[in-house]
Amino acid sequence: MTDLAQGLRLRDDFPGVGDWHYLDSAATAQKPQAVIDAIARAYGADYATVHRGVYERSANMTLAYEAARRKVAQFIGAASDAEIVYVRGATEGINLVAQSWAGTQLKAGDRILLSTLEHHSNIVPWQIVAERVGAQIDVVPLMRDGCIDLDAMAAMITPAHKMVALAHVSNVLGSVLDCRRAADIAHGAGAKILIDGCQAVPRLAVNVAALDCDFYVFSAHKLYGPTGIGVLWARQDLLDAMPPYQGGGSMIDKVTFEKTTYAPAPTRFEAGTPHITGVVGLSAAIDYVQAIGLATIHAHECALVAKARSALDDLNSVRLFGPESSAGILSFEVQGVHPHDVGTILDEGGVAIRAGHHCAQPLMRHLGVEATARASFGLYSDDSDVDALVQGLARVRKIFG
Amino acid sequence: MTDLAQGLRLRDDFPGVGDWHYLDSAATAQKPQAVIDAIARAYGADYATVHRGVYERSANMTLAYEAARRKVAQFIGAASDAEIVYVRGATEGINLVAQSWAGTQLKAGDRILLSTLEHHSNIVPWQIVAERVGAQIDVVPLMRDGCIDLDAMAAMITPAHKMVALAHVSNVLGSVLDCRRAADIAHGAGAKILIDGCQAVPRLAVNVAALDCDFYVFSAHKLYGPTGIGVLWARQDLLDAMPPYQGGGSMIDKVTFEKTTYAPAPTRFEAGTPHITGVVGLSAAIDYVQAIGLATIHAHECALVAKARSALDDLNSVRLFGPESSAGILSFEVQGVHPHDVGTILDEGGVAIRAGHHCAQPLMRHLGVEATARASFGLYSDDSDVDALVQGLARVRKIFG
Repeated sequence: MTDLAQGLRLRDDFPGVGDWHYLDSAATAQKPQAVIDAIARAYGADYATVHRGVYERSANMTLAYEAARRKVAQFIGAASDAEIVYVRGATEGINLVAQSWAGTQLKAGDRILLSTLEHHSNIVPWQIVAERVGAQIDVVPLMRDGCIDLDAMAAMITPAHKMVALAHVSNVLGSVLDCRRAADIAHGAGAKILIDGCQAVPRLAVNVAALDCDFYVFSAHKLYGPTGIGVLWARQDLLDAMPPYQGGGSMIDKVTFEKTTYAPAPTRFEAGTPHITGVVGLSAAIDYVQAIGLATIHAHECALVAKARSALDDLNSVRLFGPESSAGILSFEVQGVHPHDVGTILDEGGVAIRAGHHCAQPLMRHLGVEATARASFGLYSDDSDVDALVQGLARVRKIFG
Repeated sequence: MTDLAQGLRLRDDFPGVGDWHYLDSAATAQKPQAVIDAIARAYGADYATVHRGVYERSANMTLAYEAARRKVAQFIGAASDAEIVYVRGATEGINLVAQSWAGTQLKAGDRILLSTLEHHSNIVPWQIVAERVGAQIDVVPLMRDGCIDLDAMAAMITPAHKMVALAHVSNVLGSVLDCRRAADIAHGAGAKILIDGCQAVPRLAVNVAALDCDFYVFSAHKLYGPTGIGVLWARQDLLDAMPPYQGGGSMIDKVTFEKTTYAPAPTRFEAGTPHITGVVGLSAAIDYVQAIGLATIHAHECALVAKARSALDDLNSVRLFGPESSAGILSFEVQGVHPHDVGTILDEGGVAIRAGHHCAQPLMRHLGVEATARASFGLYSDDSDVDALVQGLARVRKIFG
């Protein structure tokens, strides 16, 4: 159990935090100075392109770029760095799998299984490809506490389901999926399973081998890293069978106007000059997070959520969503007050939360609300943030009578 | 005419240059400290997500993000900021147009017109979509000096050609396309025209209205800006008619599992959390370049190319490619020496060039070589870089006898 009053004593590492009560880490995490410095260095004295230069600085940048790929592979327990594809973010990762895997593997009559709590980024790409190939989408319901109902999933999956795509941690409720059981159910029916790890990777130790999933995606900017970069992990045999997603430089073997042949994975999926400094920054972010340890971060965030749930539960006008044991994310509503007004009043007191549908409109309909207020924690969060949230909500009640 | 010995006196603005003779700006440009500082600030005290936060810092970041879109629109002469789509880079921009426009507008029997000198990023995306829809690709030949032969283009274009895609400036030869004439020829046959502006935007004043093209793409990292960000400009009516390219957060209007409706352009094409700091850095890069002026930069680079061509021409073992009046880019070979060896020996003397096929294998075949050596200039280049190149080539001759 961490000392909540002190937090993890890391707040000073983050120039974007200071005495601000930033409770929107599920939208995007603040960056430690070590990450910012790594990026600035990569744009300065170390700057060069990768994979192409015959001069030393470019060779060094290429080494750093590929060392980062190995670091990512180790970080999530991939069998090989060849299974790591750099993408713009989790959204692009899912679109890549939807287009390149499902778009070529699925046919009319096949089915895709999602859940009620998915982020739009794990719904819309499947709708686009389903419409293209004539597949259908089914939706696993939630249990009362907001967790995906895996018993229901086991009952509804059929051999027609070729792909299951689920969030590891809900971006609204913080509910944690039993990925391994979901993977077993999917595989039992002959389906592949993709896990949207956006909210999990900053909060839980993730090992894709232990989870036994087929595809896993996450974004660096939620992991205290840069914007514009993320990771698609896929099992080697799946990547090898997938056609390119985008054409361009670097991803080819040989180009003629008559016939072009492609490089092996992961290169085949990385057309064009990559987001070089994004990769360098992601590497620095993984170093930072690993030095603390995800078990420590998770325990700390769970303690903050427990404290916040307890304090908000005592305010009789607040309704809490999601399970007791959510991972760093807490959605709620103040009865009779629109979440945007809650957010605005909290902002006046230096507390930043998110209010809205959180790119999860189907979940909002399930909850019977237009929007929720959401407080989400990061490794820099501490007791003072929860206190400020509670004080701010008292002000909300006062203003709205 | 600028003073070559002094250059533009901007070298000290670039922490990645120093006394290095960096002649690989066509691969990627070094960054001015002003851009690096803007990025570091955006990751630090200013950091927040865009479009979603109800708190002040997120609102401010959203203002910066959208102000940058207006700046980009003005920079290239777009009619409106709604015509500016942020993409990962030019490669993604072309893939987006190929999939979303050509993939829905072209049918079997339609034809696409490219040229011999195109970068792979302006070949492979068209091959992928052509194969999908059953279209054919034709290739405009080059004139003797390496410029695209527009007389030949006028003679070969037919009503079956629905799309023409050409480089504004060749990344190998530096040859400059008469975009306006190419657009007139394309439009005369009823085709749309996409211009790959990667090498033009850092070197020439570009005004898409004056060029009368339909699509224009470029990457920020070649414009002294960040990696992982670029721009697709398209005429509003074209964007409005294009379906989404990737699904996800932000690009939707309303999501249900039964039916999802999409936001208008450009939002429809920007799924997921964007590369926020990339956009901030691009904005700073445009400020930096505009303060100098593209006419000044172009004149300076032309003077450097003229000097380099003249000096290299005096070395009787060097063969120069491309037209006299190339824009900042000069390809050559040292007879009897592989370009990679040329690059390696130059590197030992602190001169960085690129050696290889430059992602333009069809052009290499046209030139009858496997690879070329390429020196490319930036606004920080000066006389000393040309001198160092010439001295380095003398060493190459000495070593290879």
